[in-house]
Amino acid sequence: MPETTLTTPEQKEEIISYLESQQAGKFRKAYLDLHVYEQAQIFSELDETQRNRIYRYLSPVEMGDMFNAIEEEPDQVVNYFKEMIPQYAADVIYEMYTDNAVDILAYAKAKDLNQYLELLPAEAAVEIRGMLHYQDKTAGAIMSTEYVAITGNQTVRSALHVMKKEALDAETIYYIYVIDDEENLQGVLTLRDLLTNDDDALISDIMNRPVMSVDVQEDQEEVAQTIRDYNFIALPVTNPEGKMIGIINVDDIIDVIDEESAQDYSGLAGVDVDNLPSNPWQAALKRLPWSLGLLILGITTAVVISWYQTLIQKDTLMVTFIAMVMGASGNAGTQSLAVSATRIADKDDEEESTAKMVANEALTGLIVGFFSGILFAVITGIWQQDLDFGLILGLALLIAVTISNVLGCLLPIIFKKLGKDASNVPGALVSTISDLLSALIYFGTIQIFWNLYH
Amino acid sequence: MPETTLTTPEQKEEIISYLESQQAGKFRKAYLDLHVYEQAQIFSELDETQRNRIYRYLSPVEMGDMFNAIEEEPDQVVNYFKEMIPQYAADVIYEMYTDNAVDILAYAKAKDLNQYLELLPAEAAVEIRGMLHYQDKTAGAIMSTEYVAITGNQTVRSALHVMKKEALDAETIYYIYVIDDEENLQGVLTLRDLLTNDDDALISDIMNRPVMSVDVQEDQEEVAQTIRDYNFIALPVTNPEGKMIGIINVDDIIDVIDEESAQDYSGLAGVDVDNLPSNPWQAALKRLPWSLGLLILGITTAVVISWYQTLIQKDTLMVTFIAMVMGASGNAGTQSLAVSATRIADKDDEEESTAKMVANEALTGLIVGFFSGILFAVITGIWQQDLDFGLILGLALLIAVTISNVLGCLLPIIFKKLGKDASNVPGALVSTISDLLSALIYFGTIQIFWNLYH
Repeated sequence: MPETTLTTPEQKEEIISYLESQQAGKFRKAYLDLHVYEQAQIFSELDETQRNRIYRYLSPVEMGDMFNAIEEEPDQVVNYFKEMIPQYAADVIYEMYTDNAVDILAYAKAKDLNQYLELLPAEAAVEIRGMLHYQDKTAGAIMSTEYVAITGNQTVRSALHVMKKEALDAETIYYIYVIDDEENLQGVLTLRDLLTNDDDALISDIMNRPVMSVDVQEDQEEVAQTIRDYNFIALPVTNPEGKMIGIINVDDIIDVIDEESAQDYSGLAGVDVDNLPSNPWQAALKRLPWSLGLLILGITTAVVISWYQTLIQKDTLMVTFIAMVMGASGNAGTQSLAVSATRIADKDDEEESTAKMVANEALTGLIVGFFSGILFAVITGIWQQDLDFGLILGLALLIAVTISNVLGCLLPIIFKKLGKDASNVPGALVSTISDLLSALIYFGTIQIFWNLYH
Repeated sequence: MPETTLTTPEQKEEIISYLESQQAGKFRKAYLDLHVYEQAQIFSELDETQRNRIYRYLSPVEMGDMFNAIEEEPDQVVNYFKEMIPQYAADVIYEMYTDNAVDILAYAKAKDLNQYLELLPAEAAVEIRGMLHYQDKTAGAIMSTEYVAITGNQTVRSALHVMKKEALDAETIYYIYVIDDEENLQGVLTLRDLLTNDDDALISDIMNRPVMSVDVQEDQEEVAQTIRDYNFIALPVTNPEGKMIGIINVDDIIDVIDEESAQDYSGLAGVDVDNLPSNPWQAALKRLPWSLGLLILGITTAVVISWYQTLIQKDTLMVTFIAMVMGASGNAGTQSLAVSATRIADKDDEEESTAKMVANEALTGLIVGFFSGILFAVITGIWQQDLDFGLILGLALLIAVTISNVLGCLLPIIFKKLGKDASNVPGALVSTISDLLSALIYFGTIQIFWNLYH
């Protein structure tokens, strides 16, 4: 029968009961039989006493394999290292894939980090120290240093021999990279190429060239785009001198894609949905900065409305429709924001100039505003039995929607110019500024026509 | 030197010039030297005359490889088949990976589809017909039927032999699936396992069990989650009887993840950002339904405000702050919506009951509303030199924000209950309803206290 999970709740309970009753042998047998992802899921549910037992029951290799699959945030995982005997922690770090270990060690206190590194073989310590220097969100920060590289003067047979030897350590063995004596990247082979070519064929004759690679300082989003476009399983990373120094695997890229899309969504919503606190106090604390900030910004709208008190006193009915204009403009502005932020993020559109994008949004706003304005004029005209009044309000809506559309397009452009992420403009910022402009346009338009007719 | 693209604009121009001058040989050499992704990118830029030449210059195998990598929408690609001689089109379809061909053929007219299928080998036609029946967004719709399967009674040596033979056709050769005589899935091996085990070892002794698999009717999002969690490169698909019928590759899953995240973002923004028309008319047409719909819904808010005309006439200053209350509530409602839609989508939270989620959002709203209310009371109290008035408005804001928070949480729950996607609730729907409730709460609160004091 097909299965969608490998562990039943009963199995889980059984495994934890072995841990409780300190049956190391039974625990090891049942636990190590699981996929590392499920081992990690169970580990994350344990308390400190239980974890301390696991540290004694599992070898550093077994622990390292499991830690490679752990889904908790690295600033949490680093605390587990502190629970272990330092030498054991260092051994676990040594057994993990370097990129995963570095992700976690980035959150270790300097004192702890130095202790672990001193207990590691010198070469591994140097490698980890080197990788800790790569900037967050670059290729260097997500790359792995475990890959298979050979030289071009080997035969398929000897390459297969190397593969067999290195297969257990490398994170992916699907690609075999060909380097020269200076470690410059020369070509690439897939296992498929090795299997379908003659055993005596020379690697340099059958390797694929040129190889696509990314610079170690490349932005992780660019790397994700390349892997997506070309359907690669992995992509080599080179330093500025062209030396191959690592690979980025597709599973790391999936994490990048998830992270970026959660950020875009959070940006638009004005609240971080990636790390959701279950405690309402913490949730409120996260939302308060924007909430209070926008409330203060909203004072400007109140000021504008207060300017028109004399006008409003002449006929309070005009207040009736202000919310509809603000709502329609805010809505238009948010749509324009989402479209513009997406366009800016989509590098394919780089040819399209910023000016053209703004002009397009203005035109789109004009069209949406025109039809919304007509509908609004009809509604208000019929309601108030006053066609002139309806037309004035329809005109105000047309202007307000058009301007909000331009606003929603300009804000991400400005954010980008300021060196921020264009997708970090919250919809609420657009609608708050749009409220201000709508109030000005709404009462301003009415004022002008009022003066004309009275 | 490292490179981030393989083709220079000059190379591209050169290739197109060969096509223009009908130099088939030179074109083939330069074009086929490119990665299929880049071949496809160039193909997408050509006009019909140029495409017709390519159909003559490239073999169905070469054309099929390139079509596997094409990024245009399938309803566009299907038109290219119509430009080809039917037999050539059928041959290209035959050479493509079945899942990719099926994606495109789903958009073919019945007459064209039948013609292609008649020209295909019977077995391939049956397979394509079968896959066309799988429901959109299920495992069946995205699976590939090109994979390597062996039986357990073989040795590593004979398995490697099978691999070599099938390597050229299979979409991934990283996993080798072990099936019994009834094609039931028994186990799985990675190429790594084959390479690191003795040539004479029996497959059934070294294969990994149990194998995780997904049912052919499983939702594609669930499949994506499994591949993400377990860091798989591919996942086998079984029919309800447990027979293996296909695999889902990680690159198909990346497309699913992109699609789903674009949908979530589009849902919140109330505009589809996945297919952005460059023409403002088309863009406006896409946004008009929501815009006009929400404008009509906004009439309710106007009605509510009109109810309070007598109250407003007593002191028009109270109108000054209505926009701030509506803005703050709309903002709170949108944040609550984004958080709730994410929680609902995140299956890990299933244990948490709906009631608890609503209670949490209400509490979060109360806390945010409390601090916003105090700030609002201070602002309005100082401005109007009237502390009582400030406190009344602060109370109104507290109530409005809390209720909007609950609203933002309830709407996605209701959408889900109605069988729709919880992430399809636009922020603008929440803020429009929130405007209505805010107007009621704002003027209602003032009315109550007005009656108390006058």
